[in-house]
Amino acid sequence: MASLVPVSDPADPRLADYVRLRDVNLRKSLEAEHGLFVAEGEKVIRRAVGAGHPVRSLLMARRWAEPLSDVLDGLDAPVYIADDATMEGLVGFQVHRGALASLERLPLPPVEAVLGDARRVLVLEDLVDHGNVGAIFRCAAALGVDAVVLSPRCADPLYRRSVKVSMGAVFAIPYARMTGRHDGLARLRGAGFTLLALTPDAAAVPLDKAPMTGRVALMLGSEGDGLSSHWIHEADEAVRIPMSPDAMSAGVDSLNVVAAAAIACHTLVGAADAP
Amino acid sequence: MASLVPVSDPADPRLADYVRLRDVNLRKSLEAEHGLFVAEGEKVIRRAVGAGHPVRSLLMARRWAEPLSDVLDGLDAPVYIADDATMEGLVGFQVHRGALASLERLPLPPVEAVLGDARRVLVLEDLVDHGNVGAIFRCAAALGVDAVVLSPRCADPLYRRSVKVSMGAVFAIPYARMTGRHDGLARLRGAGFTLLALTPDAAAVPLDKAPMTGRVALMLGSEGDGLSSHWIHEADEAVRIPMSPDAMSAGVDSLNVVAAAAIACHTLVGAADAP
Ligand SMILES: C[S@@+](CC[C@H](N)C(=O)[O-])C[C@H]1O[C@@H](n2cnc3c(N)ncnc32)[C@H](O)[C@@H]1O
Ligand SMILES: C[S@@+](CC[C@H](N)C(=O)[O-])C[C@H]1O[C@@H](n2cnc3c(N)ncnc32)[C@H](O)[C@@H]1O
Repeated sequence: MASLVPVSDPADPRLADYVRLRDVNLRKSLEAEHGLFVAEGEKVIRRAVGAGHPVRSLLMARRWAEPLSDVLDGLDAPVYIADDATMEGLVGFQVHRGALASLERLPLPPVEAVLGDARRVLVLEDLVDHGNVGAIFRCAAALGVDAVVLSPRCADPLYRRSVKVSMGAVFAIPYARMTGRHDGLARLRGAGFTLLALTPDAAAVPLDKAPMTGRVALMLGSEGDGLSSHWIHEADEAVRIPMSPDAMSAGVDSLNVVAAAAIACHTLVGAADAP
Repeated sequence: MASLVPVSDPADPRLADYVRLRDVNLRKSLEAEHGLFVAEGEKVIRRAVGAGHPVRSLLMARRWAEPLSDVLDGLDAPVYIADDATMEGLVGFQVHRGALASLERLPLPPVEAVLGDARRVLVLEDLVDHGNVGAIFRCAAALGVDAVVLSPRCADPLYRRSVKVSMGAVFAIPYARMTGRHDGLARLRGAGFTLLALTPDAAAVPLDKAPMTGRVALMLGSEGDGLSSHWIHEADEAVRIPMSPDAMSAGVDSLNVVAAAAIACHTLVGAADAP
């Protein structure tokens, strides 16, 4: 069993991996520099370790050592034990789930590798909100999507909030990041995928008329701009989820990307199950 | 046109309506005590005013006075002009949207009043997350749900984050709050609604087999506990959105409530449109 190391100084340099967890810019550069990410809560930590991410350290309230003892057994990373005030001073908010882990990132597979024998994939273009990325992974796992492909600038699935909102599904659904904006779509097409660009555009084909046989990739865009015109142009079909005629007058011009992903995945999975 | 009042002290008592906007507990009691709520951003402020909420005051960076001049015209509430640092010191974070309004709440209508000639309603039991409540209102407006009914303890649609995530749909979709946990459902039933309890329970009827003719109320539960057994018992049918057989092993036992609401509303609206 790993040794438990009591700590009480939020400025302790051994705790540097956990500093200011809500400061997105700081975290991005710190995590990239050290190739680490942070998982929060017993369940998610267990999933991350189970997915093969080497542990750099753990930081928790003493009460979590017992429920996590199976993880701590055989671990040779330090386990820092702190009270709530120390943790709050360090990370910048009250850690309700009481346990944090700093883990090593693994090299991401190339796009081809995650396509493997996948039939249904999601392709996310430049989503900026980590909560949306995490929620889409949860949807993908719940509904039976096989893989996710990210545009070069899409938000990081291993950012703490993505991981948390995904309920750990980021460790279960294979994903890859395109190296260039353009060749990624070509690879999907080369692998025989029908590319469907989801857009609220009234000129697009309604979802229930979209071609959904064979390998299908659903492309989703960001909250502000939606899919780029380049990506829509590259798609085999632009597809819309019909909206209420009253939506515009209510000030709503589109669905949230998670809601759109949920509806499209549900329809896609249902279509594939049909005889 | 309202007069513009420069302010520079975050502790100025005239700005008390805007203090510590992310402190949920403080805000709940402050807003309840004064019967106010806060709207953020030009578009949402305009919707809130358009919905008839009297303005207590506005607080904005000077650059917003011009784009909001139509709202300011004829307003007799004060318009406080502050720089970014003053606003940040007051509200506790950087206000990206640059404009805030403090508005008066209006008395909520009784449940019967929002049922009116509604055909499709959502009934939310004890959701705690304001983002989820707002996202469900956005979905409802996008997809054509007529009204929302909240359990007595469901999170507040006029909380700043709900309003923001809803894109202002909380001002367009009529909603009411049940006074008692139990009589609310009886009223829906009395008005001829079929009550469908959405639950991931494998024993429930799959969504595509659920009865969706006539007036339909979709009941949705909270992130942790889901619907109470009492509510499920009161429903005409428990209904599930089929999940992947691999979801459980990925650690995912359910959809997020917004994803579930989106799929169920899309199916409901499609069913009603069918001949
Ligand atoms: C908030 S929307 C983007 C809105 C943006 N103004 C646009 O026109 O695309 C985010 C993403 O959700 C998806 N989406 C939202 N509403 C949709 C709808 N009604 N039909 C299909 N996809 C939709 C699209 O992939 C979109 O890029
Ligand atoms: C996160 S889930 C709650 C999970 C909770 N453990 C349960 O068993 O209900 C929140 C709400 O979303 C809806 N929901 C989630 N997944 C669903 C599914 N597969 N089918 C139907 N409704 C679902 C239900 O209304 C549920 O109360």
